[in-house]
Amino acid sequence: MRMYDIIMKKRNGGALSEEEIQFFVKGYTRGEIPDYQAAALMMAIYFQHMTKAETNALTMAMMHSGDVLDLSAIEGIKVDKHSTGGVGDKTSLAVIPMVAACGVRVAKMSGRGLGHTGGTVDKLESFPGFSTAITGQQFVDNVNRIGIAIMGQTADLAPADKKLYALRDVTATVDNMSLIASSIMSKKLAAGTDAIVLDVKTGSGAFMKKEEDSYALAQEMVDIGKAAGKEVIAVISDMDQPLGRAVGNALEVKEAIATLRGEGPEDFVELSLMLGSQMLLAGGKAQTEKEAKQQLQQVIADGSALRKLAEFVAAQGGDSAAVYDTELLPKAKLVLPVPAPQSGYIQHIACDEIGMCSLLLGGGRETKESAIDLSVGLVLEKKVGDSVEEGEPLAWLHANDENQAAAARERFLAACQIGETAPAKGDIIKHIIR
Amino acid sequence: MRMYDIIMKKRNGGALSEEEIQFFVKGYTRGEIPDYQAAALMMAIYFQHMTKAETNALTMAMMHSGDVLDLSAIEGIKVDKHSTGGVGDKTSLAVIPMVAACGVRVAKMSGRGLGHTGGTVDKLESFPGFSTAITGQQFVDNVNRIGIAIMGQTADLAPADKKLYALRDVTATVDNMSLIASSIMSKKLAAGTDAIVLDVKTGSGAFMKKEEDSYALAQEMVDIGKAAGKEVIAVISDMDQPLGRAVGNALEVKEAIATLRGEGPEDFVELSLMLGSQMLLAGGKAQTEKEAKQQLQQVIADGSALRKLAEFVAAQGGDSAAVYDTELLPKAKLVLPVPAPQSGYIQHIACDEIGMCSLLLGGGRETKESAIDLSVGLVLEKKVGDSVEEGEPLAWLHANDENQAAAARERFLAACQIGETAPAKGDIIKHIIR
Repeated sequence: MRMYDIIMKKRNGGALSEEEIQFFVKGYTRGEIPDYQAAALMMAIYFQHMTKAETNALTMAMMHSGDVLDLSAIEGIKVDKHSTGGVGDKTSLAVIPMVAACGVRVAKMSGRGLGHTGGTVDKLESFPGFSTAITGQQFVDNVNRIGIAIMGQTADLAPADKKLYALRDVTATVDNMSLIASSIMSKKLAAGTDAIVLDVKTGSGAFMKKEEDSYALAQEMVDIGKAAGKEVIAVISDMDQPLGRAVGNALEVKEAIATLRGEGPEDFVELSLMLGSQMLLAGGKAQTEKEAKQQLQQVIADGSALRKLAEFVAAQGGDSAAVYDTELLPKAKLVLPVPAPQSGYIQHIACDEIGMCSLLLGGGRETKESAIDLSVGLVLEKKVGDSVEEGEPLAWLHANDENQAAAARERFLAACQIGETAPAKGDIIKHIIR
Repeated sequence: MRMYDIIMKKRNGGALSEEEIQFFVKGYTRGEIPDYQAAALMMAIYFQHMTKAETNALTMAMMHSGDVLDLSAIEGIKVDKHSTGGVGDKTSLAVIPMVAACGVRVAKMSGRGLGHTGGTVDKLESFPGFSTAITGQQFVDNVNRIGIAIMGQTADLAPADKKLYALRDVTATVDNMSLIASSIMSKKLAAGTDAIVLDVKTGSGAFMKKEEDSYALAQEMVDIGKAAGKEVIAVISDMDQPLGRAVGNALEVKEAIATLRGEGPEDFVELSLMLGSQMLLAGGKAQTEKEAKQQLQQVIADGSALRKLAEFVAAQGGDSAAVYDTELLPKAKLVLPVPAPQSGYIQHIACDEIGMCSLLLGGGRETKESAIDLSVGLVLEKKVGDSVEEGEPLAWLHANDENQAAAARERFLAACQIGETAPAKGDIIKHIIR
């Protein structure tokens, strides 16, 4: 088998066999197939697409390119959750304690974020002492004992995907549905859980800007999961404006805690209950969405979801006092308003631009080496459809530097469109594919 | 400017600007742009094509990536000739002495061949002592004095093309019209002549198998030449069976000499006169094709074309005795027939397979390092449309090894189709584009 023939076959519109895909993935992972041939193949795939069978084969080959976790030492059905990412997306922080409080076990590998805020691991480090550097044994023990553990990505999961994604990122071959789906699913499948609930974002702050593309990606991932014998449910949710009100690491933790206390913002609560419900259904803890939602509302109302968060933080070395007193979380020196330049209704908030405001304040990473400021970010006072008076705050900036705040304010104002008539409010949940 | 954006623009169907193309070619030649980004761009170009303006810009950028020869020290109009290559293509060996005998100056850079036979330089080395390793001054002096010089590719002509072609060769991105045209033309333009006559082959033994593709390539190259202010004429000629009768280095030299003596095979003579006529027209030595052809026939008839070959061989250190006594050329030990397995008419000769026979006999190079046997090859007794009796020789194999001869004979028979009715004979010259 020759890589040249594989490139040529795909270029000419042929479907690659499982053997050809395995030959490519193995050879590329080992460094026997050079980057330039892989780049040519990726571009050929961009134009000629891949069939379901090819996408499945690519996913499985990448999944098996490194470790595949064996979670059999953990009792019961293990459920994972994955979001395609967006602005203000602190969903894991609220949903995982909720579902664990209902008895579903969550064993999660998590990475650090590269973008406008940190990832889940960064956010959790807002609790002093919290660490994901736990051993495999601690990981298993914690899940068995309290129902949750999150481990930093120490295992060598899907190295082929890692290498290939880095190449696609510099050769303009990222945005192909099959390649995106297989990239996400190869890692999720290697992580070894029984079921996966996917939060597929759509809109200006999402990777997929168009709703039809988000649907297609969700369908593709669900199909891959099914082919691999896993239960996969995809919730397509709105990311045309930031989720909830808080954007920034500690600020998002605070909002997640408020949600676990029954005081979360409406859109974020709705999405968290939906994702949590799907996890309960997948975990066999409820038979209907209605029943699942009631269970989740119960663990919020009786305080057990919040206690579960505290238990989880403490089990991984963190100071759980902040769960009950959020004043103990990292705090920025300055809290400054973004006053509305005119009266009217919020028409549109350019979601990715709000992410850029957080980055300007120091809340995200531009490169893997960047330091991250957990305290900074912003909290929206107004969301799309809200009315505002001139001079009223649109948002509060949490900053440690006046110049950064000024830059973020300018960017925020440019991103926020105010008009005379009230626009229709969209739904947070667009669709569910299972 | 970023290479990523250039790839993305082309991937999305945009036309690259001259600046973007120059940025790519310069960066790639210098090694600042990696192979994997170049490979992604080549594949994107394969799918999205290039406009005339882009193709011109790519050609000029590659032409200027290295030395551009200044032939102003050579008096008069300098004419070059280039063939896209085929089986039995010894045209330069006959045409160049003819046109030089008519007074057109030919200053040519030539390479060695990679394929079923050697290149023009290899073939010329059939004359003992002949060398293309001459100095720039000798080159100029020889052209001024006798009208011909051929130099090995010592100058650094179009290094961008060299690097890019090697990459395309391993990433299945060779067969794009714009890329092929710009590759050929960048080298030809860098070689500094005033006019270029192109022999664009079409058929089973050519790079372009389909006639319409050969037309398109010829048109593309003529357009590039015009945009660069040069006179370029393309002759589209048949390569559906080997050209002439001889395939193999010294055997082709012998056939070229026979042609200069007025004893060449019909198709080869016709093509040589046509290419030569175009060179005389471009060189201002004739006003009409008819007039040009008469001049060429005259230099054949009076022996001056043959003397010009001898003069040229001697001027570059070769023993010109073989021009007048071809028995002095390298000769194979064995000359064996390929007997016809049945009677009938030759329907078809798979041209590229005849090339493979020559390679099997040791007459070509599989890799750049391979040694080449100048003496071996084959001479066709029958061509398409000829009648043959069972047992009559279809061809003679010139070999130095019985096993190689046996393998070549088997391959030859498989390539040669004999049927009951006489097929129509095709024209050697298909079209001329200027």
